[in-house]
Amino acid sequence: MPESTGSGRTSTTWRVGARQPVDYEVVIARGLLEPQNRELAQACGADGVATRCLVLIDDAVDVLYGEALRAYFDAWSIDTSWTVINGSEESKSIAQVVAATEAMSSMGILRRAEKVIAIGGGAVLDVAGMAASLYRRGVPYVRVPTTLIGQVDAGVGVKTGVNYGTHKNRLGSYYAPEKALIDPEFLRTVPQRHINNGMAEIAKMALIKDRELFELLESVAGEVSAATLADAGPHLLEIMTRAIGGMLDELEPNLWEHELERVVDYGHTFSPSLELRADPPLLHGEAVAVDMAVCVAVAHNRGLLGHEGADRALALLQALGLPTTDPVFTTELLAESLQDAVRHRDGAQRVPLTSGLGSAVFVNDIDDGELAAALEFVRAAAGTGLVRASR
Amino acid sequence: MPESTGSGRTSTTWRVGARQPVDYEVVIARGLLEPQNRELAQACGADGVATRCLVLIDDAVDVLYGEALRAYFDAWSIDTSWTVINGSEESKSIAQVVAATEAMSSMGILRRAEKVIAIGGGAVLDVAGMAASLYRRGVPYVRVPTTLIGQVDAGVGVKTGVNYGTHKNRLGSYYAPEKALIDPEFLRTVPQRHINNGMAEIAKMALIKDRELFELLESVAGEVSAATLADAGPHLLEIMTRAIGGMLDELEPNLWEHELERVVDYGHTFSPSLELRADPPLLHGEAVAVDMAVCVAVAHNRGLLGHEGADRALALLQALGLPTTDPVFTTELLAESLQDAVRHRDGAQRVPLTSGLGSAVFVNDIDDGELAAALEFVRAAAGTGLVRASR
Repeated sequence: MPESTGSGRTSTTWRVGARQPVDYEVVIARGLLEPQNRELAQACGADGVATRCLVLIDDAVDVLYGEALRAYFDAWSIDTSWTVINGSEESKSIAQVVAATEAMSSMGILRRAEKVIAIGGGAVLDVAGMAASLYRRGVPYVRVPTTLIGQVDAGVGVKTGVNYGTHKNRLGSYYAPEKALIDPEFLRTVPQRHINNGMAEIAKMALIKDRELFELLESVAGEVSAATLADAGPHLLEIMTRAIGGMLDELEPNLWEHELERVVDYGHTFSPSLELRADPPLLHGEAVAVDMAVCVAVAHNRGLLGHEGADRALALLQALGLPTTDPVFTTELLAESLQDAVRHRDGAQRVPLTSGLGSAVFVNDIDDGELAAALEFVRAAAGTGLVRASR
Repeated sequence: MPESTGSGRTSTTWRVGARQPVDYEVVIARGLLEPQNRELAQACGADGVATRCLVLIDDAVDVLYGEALRAYFDAWSIDTSWTVINGSEESKSIAQVVAATEAMSSMGILRRAEKVIAIGGGAVLDVAGMAASLYRRGVPYVRVPTTLIGQVDAGVGVKTGVNYGTHKNRLGSYYAPEKALIDPEFLRTVPQRHINNGMAEIAKMALIKDRELFELLESVAGEVSAATLADAGPHLLEIMTRAIGGMLDELEPNLWEHELERVVDYGHTFSPSLELRADPPLLHGEAVAVDMAVCVAVAHNRGLLGHEGADRALALLQALGLPTTDPVFTTELLAESLQDAVRHRDGAQRVPLTSGLGSAVFVNDIDDGELAAALEFVRAAAGTGLVRASR
């Protein structure tokens, strides 16, 4: 109860305090679209009873899986309103969020009992999640990520967002799904470049907190493909499971980012301002990889990471088909990105760096000279052929 | 920590659970703009140290208090970025929210240390709060409501929002301010119609949970004005304090509206769909008053509220200068509004009705016939001169 502490006639104070409970599940569930698999139907609240839900689906996924999905929903007597969303990063905009809320309004979705089912890559999950968080100040939603980056990163946390201008995720919310359902089968149709894109976030988890994962990645780097991931053989399933589990271990105690020193921000210091400026465009994971390469060099030049460690880190990114340099990553733009990161991290750099493979420290004093030297280091490494400069 | 419950090779589940703490203060602080009053400076984080903040200010308030506010901020060495926001209900739009986030971006506001100070009526507080909740997924803000409805209602809770189409607050968020600072002195310049507008929300609190407040209102109804409220004499200060305290008592245990049976929804069943359709437009409190009059009649016709109670309730609204009928409130539109309320309340009407002055019950079975009879009742009451039909 608010306590009123009146002090004479001039001041009365009430203190309001509450705790918002957030609970959700992340499930690796293979064969999600098989009619006898009840996982998705349960998430729709339809296990045995007819219900309605709003499907917000990635345009590319609709083409590939629309028919199977419709058959699945029919089999479970789920009456769907079906809205296709452009899944490109460029259309991750407030206008798309508003359009998604219009679909909720047209359907007349019930505020709690009927779910939004978001199916697609990271951009669609971000847009659909933000729309779900804003419509009537929040309606429940379920995430079904269909890309690797969605399955190990964007799809398992609570962040939603859209880009604004050249700024990644400048507007957004923290809004947990009821469930995130991860079916590696969806990866079978993901182009190799987008597989590599997701591997960048897995490499990030390895570099900053999981040396075993790093070594696993080294051992299978040449075999990572849509088919091997979809088949989910023992090594590849373990890689995905470690990446997701490691990510959730980091997110859960800091779901609303009260703590701004976040190891999962590795590779996300310079990339948010640069990803949208690259021409030709970089995928998110590609920009993260270039950022990580810079950070490997900074760590190496500071003596935090030995020669062997730096070589192995850069070689792994290369083996995963990721770029380590890009023309847009100049010293000037890196410095400008760092300034925006400082604002984002409330006045300090808080840059995570690898201190040996699989562990991280935070630094607050990176200067322009270091950035220039780091760029030179990765360019030289790329030039020697150790690290491939182009994708 | 997420627990992983692997069951064979086909399924792995993590459960993520966390509790978000929300704590804020609502303070009645007279003389907020007096240079020696440290309340606002402290809220800006500037008690003795120079700092920056972003002021998002209602255009009408800027004209009246801009000079005094600037002098106050200067006196406390607070470097302000100053953005004027149109305070009309019509401009409570997603476009205004985006414009407010652009002001945050231009200033380069730090994510936690620098505050957004929202100063104005309910519309500006709603827009500024929503912008603060979305920019970088949330920056801290302080609310300084300057209208009566802002001081007793929109300004003390955690809701933000904008209208969409003809729907009130269709998009929004739950996002607590760090502090809400309430200075009755601001009311001195509020037009009488807008004073009455705020009194509607106070009458609501009286009708559904506070019979003493109801009787206080009856005793002073003729004296309620900008001047008497700003002077904050004993009765009027007690009225505001009871209204705010009662509101916070209701909000605090249900800050995210997990419980959809809310007594504070009294007067907010039919009005959200009708407020934006009235021509000439109704103020929020006026639409709420017409909705409350309908609900008084429904309660009376059901035997929940006796003749004397119904008469006193309608007479109080009249004495407060509020309308009890409006041409836009037809049976058909009431029925349509109720359907949208049912979606908003997850499939049931959950309509609060007075069951005697100062207490409430919820009903789920209001039909069109009852709505027609209720309209007839309030029109007849207005026609007899007991209740004034026009404002």
